[in-house]
Amino acid sequence: MQKIRSGTLAALLLGSIFTPSLSLAAPADNDVIREAALKDDVAWDFTEGLTTEVGPRPAGTPQEARARDWAVAKLKALGFSNVRAEPYTMPVWVRGQDEARILSPFPQNLVLAALGNSGSTSDKGIEGEIIYFPSIDALEAASAASLKGKIAFVDHGMGATQDGSSYGYYGAARRQGPSIASKKGAIAILIRSIGTDHHRVPHTGVQMWADGATPIPAAALSVPDAEQLVRVVKRGQPVKVHLTLTSKMLKDQPSGNVVAEIPGSDPAAGVVVAACHLDSWDQGTGAIDDATGCGIAAASALQVAKTGQPRRTIRVLMAGAEEVGGDGARAYFKAHGTERHALAMESDFGADRVWRVDFKLPQGHDDLAKRIAMALAPLGIGAGRQEAGGGADIAPLVKAGVPVIDLQQDGTRYFDLHHTPDDTLDKVDVAQLRQNVAAWAVTLNLVANAAESMSAN
Amino acid sequence: MQKIRSGTLAALLLGSIFTPSLSLAAPADNDVIREAALKDDVAWDFTEGLTTEVGPRPAGTPQEARARDWAVAKLKALGFSNVRAEPYTMPVWVRGQDEARILSPFPQNLVLAALGNSGSTSDKGIEGEIIYFPSIDALEAASAASLKGKIAFVDHGMGATQDGSSYGYYGAARRQGPSIASKKGAIAILIRSIGTDHHRVPHTGVQMWADGATPIPAAALSVPDAEQLVRVVKRGQPVKVHLTLTSKMLKDQPSGNVVAEIPGSDPAAGVVVAACHLDSWDQGTGAIDDATGCGIAAASALQVAKTGQPRRTIRVLMAGAEEVGGDGARAYFKAHGTERHALAMESDFGADRVWRVDFKLPQGHDDLAKRIAMALAPLGIGAGRQEAGGGADIAPLVKAGVPVIDLQQDGTRYFDLHHTPDDTLDKVDVAQLRQNVAAWAVTLNLVANAAESMSAN
Repeated sequence: MQKIRSGTLAALLLGSIFTPSLSLAAPADNDVIREAALKDDVAWDFTEGLTTEVGPRPAGTPQEARARDWAVAKLKALGFSNVRAEPYTMPVWVRGQDEARILSPFPQNLVLAALGNSGSTSDKGIEGEIIYFPSIDALEAASAASLKGKIAFVDHGMGATQDGSSYGYYGAARRQGPSIASKKGAIAILIRSIGTDHHRVPHTGVQMWADGATPIPAAALSVPDAEQLVRVVKRGQPVKVHLTLTSKMLKDQPSGNVVAEIPGSDPAAGVVVAACHLDSWDQGTGAIDDATGCGIAAASALQVAKTGQPRRTIRVLMAGAEEVGGDGARAYFKAHGTERHALAMESDFGADRVWRVDFKLPQGHDDLAKRIAMALAPLGIGAGRQEAGGGADIAPLVKAGVPVIDLQQDGTRYFDLHHTPDDTLDKVDVAQLRQNVAAWAVTLNLVANAAESMSAN
Repeated sequence: MQKIRSGTLAALLLGSIFTPSLSLAAPADNDVIREAALKDDVAWDFTEGLTTEVGPRPAGTPQEARARDWAVAKLKALGFSNVRAEPYTMPVWVRGQDEARILSPFPQNLVLAALGNSGSTSDKGIEGEIIYFPSIDALEAASAASLKGKIAFVDHGMGATQDGSSYGYYGAARRQGPSIASKKGAIAILIRSIGTDHHRVPHTGVQMWADGATPIPAAALSVPDAEQLVRVVKRGQPVKVHLTLTSKMLKDQPSGNVVAEIPGSDPAAGVVVAACHLDSWDQGTGAIDDATGCGIAAASALQVAKTGQPRRTIRVLMAGAEEVGGDGARAYFKAHGTERHALAMESDFGADRVWRVDFKLPQGHDDLAKRIAMALAPLGIGAGRQEAGGGADIAPLVKAGVPVIDLQQDGTRYFDLHHTPDDTLDKVDVAQLRQNVAAWAVTLNLVANAAESMSAN
């Protein structure tokens, strides 16, 4: 995670001698773009519109289709070129009823949400005794005999971090927990929500069944409910729970990406992709995940276009089906992977301020990184020491070697809201959203107009 | 609201000349009691136990009966005397299914909770067009013709206040809104939750049908859902909603109060009542409303008892059925109203720190008020200019002229949680809970041991 490339970034951090800009855009443009972007209304307008007029838009559902129609109309109205939906099909998991109740020793309801691809109970539900694990490691270490016929309950201690790095470690309870529990013979699994809030809003999220793991009902308790269940378990008496988690799987449902462009003057110079995802989880209206990301990508491309046609085409990619495994990203790569991509960026970590920029540029592009860092500095954004990695929507491009820049957003409160009913418009801070647009706009401007090749050698 | 009595409080505030204490308790006792109470574990232990081992405990339900059993056992174990439940019966409203969905123009679910005594829809629900009112006053001013056959939606702009005073004004949307809407021919009413948070946790609460008002389905939208519905309405197209709110009314269900005493040495000196309520709303576990209040009342009485037998009996009253209209308070007054009551106090506004003390003492008790204010000052509690009024659990006593002292709690975040699923143990701050116990303990100590008569003349 702390890998530092020997080239671009190290030179930047060590203070390479400033060399005259190779950019086609005049230096003054960045100041103009930044100041205009700090007054941007497009990102808010996009976010407000998508979350209000479409609302929740789970992958492969009619709501996601409405989101595509909405986005195509909106992007055309905003003046983008080549706006179109690019369809594909996919299997879809659909939530049913989510209910849980402690039967004994202290009868009371629990608030929870099934995880993506959860197995389904019958309408009448199931009953079982809780077996408690303080961590995913404890579940992993448990004997299969101890889990047989029981409901596994996996706790953890995730706390807030600015860079969201704890999601990787603690998120394993959601991603791997169900498969581990199933293989050891548990009849269901409950996890403490992978979240940092204390509200009765459970954090759902996708999990994939490992080879050989039979789907079992799998759900996340809200953090207060998980803490309640821990207190009940620690009283020492057997804890019996009734669980109703109904859901269904549908085959070959329509999904799709939405693509829109600011055409560049030099088709041979490669495309700059500005990505986000259009789908959301079903419980909230997907404001910070990821309506804002799409608003930021679209608004910043338009801020660049206002100063004139860029050298490179800026292609906004609003991917479908990010939340459930990245079908949209794969479909995009299948359709466009052979085109020349100069750079890929993605906004999918809320809309709080950008605080750090990370690069993964080809050898010989130190000066471009330096110009970008200088343009971001007035926004309170420092250059990081980590290599940029992108996100799910551009993962196939990054894997294929396309350069990437990450404008890292402040994630301190991101996991208070992530995948919960609470991911709604009121959580978006307009001032911070505009700072995002400004950071994206100057970065896109410098990359789209860079005289550099954007390729090694 | 700003009424100042000519006697006790005015003299206190104007700085009456200090007169030697008439208290039987040595002045040093207050320091000892305050310091010990700031390390109190009983209030937390009570709150943790009741919310974990009973959880939600709606009035007149088996859960409330479990709470009585739990409290009787706990208070006996804590060493109280004359511990008993005092039963009565009452009609009970029971929540069923709460579901709402915008059908057009932008289909999506809304999160809401039926209000107490709401009318019930059939299992299939009802459909209707929304008619929007920005305030209860706008609803009141509307013509009956405009509401006929529609679903009224009442918005408002309640903000947080330290003293909770805005609940009186804005709470009218919940208390009177349903009756007004029903009388004007609305088929249902939705209100913006009477709350100050931005979470998908609706605030329920009781409302009583006015004479001549037919019960209609009545519910509170969570604040984010209310704001979403406002945005949808303001798009200008007709907004059609589907509403399923099933509930039922039961007659003559068992409820009851729990009473426990620290017996005083002078039975003729009157009883000091320390009140709270044992019932809670059904959505949360009733931590701040009002497990903490009961924890504070019990713990502070015990802190006083630790320094020796008080002159007056301290009677802890854990009332039943406060949330639905005060049946417990009335039952207590019916059973005990003819006994001599020296003072009544109530804790029912969360567990954040006490910041102000208000008095309503008989003429000639200025010195007692002064002694209390001096004992509270080290806890950061100032004397207020308002007359104390008590709360629902002691309302019949106060109405009958029993003196009352209010230890006002900081309500800034109270209406983030009030009557929501979010009223859970994790919201209780132990340090502030202990400050409450300390404030109550020194006040109870001074009143229970006061040489004054506690009556006028």
